[in-house]
Amino acid sequence: MQDLNPDMHPLDEATRLEPLGAGLYRGETSPAYANMVGPFGGVIAAKLLNAVLLHPERLGEPVAFTVNYAGPIADGEFTLEARAARTNRSTQHWLIELKQNGLLATTATGVTAKRRETWSALEARRPDVPPAGELRRFPSVGRPAWIERYDLRFVKGESDFSRTGVPSEDSESVLWARDDPPRPLDFVSLVALSDVFFPRLFVRRPVFVPIGTVSFTTYFHADSALLAANGDAPILGVARAQQFRNGYFDHSAELWGAHGALLATSHQIVYYKE
Amino acid sequence: MQDLNPDMHPLDEATRLEPLGAGLYRGETSPAYANMVGPFGGVIAAKLLNAVLLHPERLGEPVAFTVNYAGPIADGEFTLEARAARTNRSTQHWLIELKQNGLLATTATGVTAKRRETWSALEARRPDVPPAGELRRFPSVGRPAWIERYDLRFVKGESDFSRTGVPSEDSESVLWARDDPPRPLDFVSLVALSDVFFPRLFVRRPVFVPIGTVSFTTYFHADSALLAANGDAPILGVARAQQFRNGYFDHSAELWGAHGALLATSHQIVYYKE
Repeated sequence: MQDLNPDMHPLDEATRLEPLGAGLYRGETSPAYANMVGPFGGVIAAKLLNAVLLHPERLGEPVAFTVNYAGPIADGEFTLEARAARTNRSTQHWLIELKQNGLLATTATGVTAKRRETWSALEARRPDVPPAGELRRFPSVGRPAWIERYDLRFVKGESDFSRTGVPSEDSESVLWARDDPPRPLDFVSLVALSDVFFPRLFVRRPVFVPIGTVSFTTYFHADSALLAANGDAPILGVARAQQFRNGYFDHSAELWGAHGALLATSHQIVYYKE
Repeated sequence: MQDLNPDMHPLDEATRLEPLGAGLYRGETSPAYANMVGPFGGVIAAKLLNAVLLHPERLGEPVAFTVNYAGPIADGEFTLEARAARTNRSTQHWLIELKQNGLLATTATGVTAKRRETWSALEARRPDVPPAGELRRFPSVGRPAWIERYDLRFVKGESDFSRTGVPSEDSESVLWARDDPPRPLDFVSLVALSDVFFPRLFVRRPVFVPIGTVSFTTYFHADSALLAANGDAPILGVARAQQFRNGYFDHSAELWGAHGALLATSHQIVYYKE
C-alpha cells in the first residue's frame, strides 16, 4: 500500500483498496484528505462505497448509501469488509464495516440496483446561479488538507471560521464544487462530494465548537452514464439545516450536475458540542 | 406470542418482541398493520427500533435510524437481532437484522445518544394549516388494514388511488396523522408515523404501479420528554419528492408536534415499476 503513483489522482490514491479476498480489503488514510482531526468523512464514505463497487458479486449501481461514523479513525491502516446481505433479481443490499486495530470505526449500508428507463420527473428546483468561473475560489490556505483537494466557489452561505463574523439568518449554502485536480465524476467522487458541505452550524453561527457527522445518507439519482456526461465540470451543491437541537443538527443537500440534472440528494445528522 | 391482550394498543401488540437473550428477539407480523402485500413498512421499522429500545445495554435515546427493506416479509414469525456495534461515552451505534426462515429480510442501523441542552434553533418552517378537527378523515374503507390504524386528515396532496384522477403539479402532501385508537407519542409510534406518507408517485401521478420503499432514514430531533408532551394529539406531516428517475424516487418529510416543535425529519428512496 505504500507505493504512490504520481499519475494517480489523489482521490483514487486515497480510495485505493487492496483486496484480501471474500469482500475483505485493506486500506489506509490519506494525508491528502486529512481533516482537522482524522480523515475527511467524505473520503471515508468513498472508501466504503468503493469496497462495494470493487466487489466481484456486485449487482447494478448504487442507489442508496448510509454511513455511520461510529468512532474516530486514526491516521494509518484499516480493514474494510463488504458483504452482500441479500441479492434479489434487480436489487442488492450491502453491509460494510471499517475496523481499525480490531475496533469497529464505521458502518455503512447500501443498496445497488439495475435500473431501467421509466417515467421520470424532477421536482426539486435548481437555484439560478452565476457560472463557477465568475466566482472566487474559497481559500484553502491554513485549512485542513482536504479543503485543498476541492475547488469550492460559494454563491451564498460561505462558512465563517474567523470567529468574528455575524450570525446568519439561515444556514443555506449554495456552491460550485469539483475535485482539484479535476477528475471525471463517478460514484466514488460523488459520494465524497456529498459530504463537502461545511457544518451548517458554522454557517449559521460563527462560533467554533467541536462537531462531527454521526450518520449520513446519499440517494443516487444518476447512473454511471449520467455521471460520466458531467466529465470534470464543477457540480452545484445546495445544503440547508432543518433544526439544531440539544447537540444534534441535520441538513439536507442536493447535488446538481453541470448540465442541470439532479445527480444526488444527501442528508446528515451532526453532533455539536454546545 | 399468540395471546392477544384486548387492553393493549394494536401498535404495542404489533411491536411486541419476545426476548430470546443477547439482543435476540422473536416477533411476528400483525394483521392490524397489514399492507397490500406483507406488512406496513413503518411498523417493521418500529419493531426494529424496539429491539434497540428494549436492549439492556442501550445508551441514551434514538437520534438516527435507517431501515433497508432487503426482501419481502411474509405473514408470520421472524427473529430480530440488535447488536451494539460500538459504544462511546455519549453515543452508541446499532446494527439490527430481521430474518425470516433464515433469510435476511430487513437491516437497520441506528444511533442512540445521551443529549444535553445546547444552543438550539429551528430553521424549517411549519406550514400554516387548519386544525385537524376541521378536516375530513381520509376514508380507510376498502384499503389495506394499516390505513385504518391511522387517523389521517389531508390539508393537501391526498393520494388518488382511483386511477381516474388528474396528475398533480407537485407531489407535496401536508396532513395530520395520529394513531387510531389514540396513543401517547413515543419513539416507536414516531418512527412508524415517519413512514405514513403514501408514495409520492401516487400523489404526482394517479396511476397505480408496483412500488416499495428500499431505504428509509429518520432523524429524531425530539427526546422522550418532548414526545410525551405531545400526548395523543395528532402530528403534522409534510412530505415532498425531489426526483422520480428510472425506477426510483426519493422524498423528504418533516414531522411536526401538536405544539409546533419539529420532532423528526425523514427521508426515503422508493422503487417503482414504470
